[in-house]
Amino acid sequence: MVPTVEWKAGKVRLIDQTKLPREVVFVDYSDYREVTAAIRDLVVRGAPAIGVTAAMGVALGAQSIEAEEVEEFLQRLQPICDHLASARPTAVNLFWAIERMRKFAVLQKDLSLPDLKQALIEEAVRMGKEDIAVNRSMGAFGAEFVGDPATILTHCNAGSLATAGYGTALGVIYAAKEAGKKIRVFADETRPILQGARLTAWELMEEGIDVTLITDNMAGYFMQKGRIDLVVVGTDRTVANGDVANKIGTYSLAVLAKEHGIPFYVAVPTSTIDFSIPTGDGIPIEERDPREVTCICNQLEIAPIGVKVESPAFDVTPARYITAIITEKGAFRPEDLHLLNDPAVDLEKIRLKGPGR
Amino acid sequence: MVPTVEWKAGKVRLIDQTKLPREVVFVDYSDYREVTAAIRDLVVRGAPAIGVTAAMGVALGAQSIEAEEVEEFLQRLQPICDHLASARPTAVNLFWAIERMRKFAVLQKDLSLPDLKQALIEEAVRMGKEDIAVNRSMGAFGAEFVGDPATILTHCNAGSLATAGYGTALGVIYAAKEAGKKIRVFADETRPILQGARLTAWELMEEGIDVTLITDNMAGYFMQKGRIDLVVVGTDRTVANGDVANKIGTYSLAVLAKEHGIPFYVAVPTSTIDFSIPTGDGIPIEERDPREVTCICNQLEIAPIGVKVESPAFDVTPARYITAIITEKGAFRPEDLHLLNDPAVDLEKIRLKGPGR
Repeated sequence: MVPTVEWKAGKVRLIDQTKLPREVVFVDYSDYREVTAAIRDLVVRGAPAIGVTAAMGVALGAQSIEAEEVEEFLQRLQPICDHLASARPTAVNLFWAIERMRKFAVLQKDLSLPDLKQALIEEAVRMGKEDIAVNRSMGAFGAEFVGDPATILTHCNAGSLATAGYGTALGVIYAAKEAGKKIRVFADETRPILQGARLTAWELMEEGIDVTLITDNMAGYFMQKGRIDLVVVGTDRTVANGDVANKIGTYSLAVLAKEHGIPFYVAVPTSTIDFSIPTGDGIPIEERDPREVTCICNQLEIAPIGVKVESPAFDVTPARYITAIITEKGAFRPEDLHLLNDPAVDLEKIRLKGPGR
Repeated sequence: MVPTVEWKAGKVRLIDQTKLPREVVFVDYSDYREVTAAIRDLVVRGAPAIGVTAAMGVALGAQSIEAEEVEEFLQRLQPICDHLASARPTAVNLFWAIERMRKFAVLQKDLSLPDLKQALIEEAVRMGKEDIAVNRSMGAFGAEFVGDPATILTHCNAGSLATAGYGTALGVIYAAKEAGKKIRVFADETRPILQGARLTAWELMEEGIDVTLITDNMAGYFMQKGRIDLVVVGTDRTVANGDVANKIGTYSLAVLAKEHGIPFYVAVPTSTIDFSIPTGDGIPIEERDPREVTCICNQLEIAPIGVKVESPAFDVTPARYITAIITEKGAFRPEDLHLLNDPAVDLEKIRLKGPGR
């Protein structure tokens, strides 16, 4: 699979996702402020990929700090962390990854400054590798819920391109395919940014998976016709009660799936779970530039000049619409999700077993 | 309001809806075959507008017939009718309007040929005027179901541009506004052809109505937030049991409305009702060119080359999702719709009264 984010020769390398699928362009960043801008401008997107990118952004910023001693270094690291954290408001991995880097630096403060800077790079790279391992584990648990054959509907891009590699929702699809199942995917185009058309369709075609592109408003039609077996999506932030924030349109799909008796799964790396928020009402929803609606890909104006627009980037799917939340630790009922935060709980007892094993 | 279709100086004049909202262009057609192509290529769209255009197309074709006697004239009229009827498969008004013109010609066969040709023009023009009168009546009945203030969600374009004038679903909105109600509209952009973004937003702005453009997948979000009071849409074909075919995405909206307890209305000129089909399963659904999905407005490629696409242009909303069907004869429960075909039924007894009178 194409690498989404890499530490390469002292720089952060990203595949420019705003240019896909027409151009495959890699960009190298040597300033953490450019990394913040890249996250904000969607050069990289997808909660886990944003997390790893931000961690590498912290490592990048750390290299440029001139300090006499570690205490001063740590003080100067803080504004770098804050800058990166300001890039986007909804994806919790951003804050989680930055906080992990900051805490790591504090814990390693007995190292020499050059060693600490190097250790931060290694920690960021480790986070990328961990993300891929998490996704493979999540995929294996999730594949149990996929029949053979199966037609899967997905929304936005929760694939390799949304992570350090392999993907969350698409990881479930890849794992099912690797298990020898005959898989067909319907990909919502996912307006306004068209991640489904531009990224998911491209990524699945690259991986040799049978994918059909549809507009977002066709999903109900195909469910009504009995042509969708299950839905699997990713998430930008999942909270304690199992409510899930994901790309705008996910909630509508969940309602439609419930109406048609179709299972609705969310692939959730535990790094995406925000136990500090009790319900989905507490998740801040990013409102994006109206031009993303009125001017497609910043190239084609489709609406009257001056039309009023609202453009929420995410919506919240309440836990009651979700059949199971698939994590790298297993699949769980949404209402059991909070138990993952309790070290005393034996996960084996609350893990759901998929019918497709 | 801008005229959608007109008989002008011996020609059929259409506003080119493929060019809106960037350019306001009128095209004159002097050959019925060009009229067929204009319907097929969406220069004109919307079931009632298609009907009136096809009727004018028949009148146009009639002018060019060279015949010695009326019997020969009627024989030569048939292939013209067949050509126009081949333009699109779903909108029943197309067939209804053409058949009305054909029957009219048969009934008037005692006229001289020049008089018959002139009478066909007058009949087509009369159909346009009748359509506007029907829409005003429908608007008045429908406005009873609109509160004050009210926020209304609509899909596609069932406005002045979809009819000879005033509109069906948007006619309800115009009538509510004319009744002095404070109206706000959310318009789905309506992929793939973007009739909501290009036509509805433009038309409502022209009429001074407060309109907010959203992508199709945002509708559920705004319903969840309690910001939509009612949904009103048009239809391309409604059948005997009250099932309604309309632009792809309508069914998803109906499911979402039901889930949120939001009333869902369909504005249905009785010319759009096909009593010959018992249920929505019998409505043919047009599958359109995949390029409408992959290349927006035939200008911007958004998907990987060669991606598989399915592109149904319509879906069927079962009667059980519909709060009321609003016609020019009043508003009715979908299950009572078949009674409109029974001359013995007293419509006053089955008419629904709106709460917003």
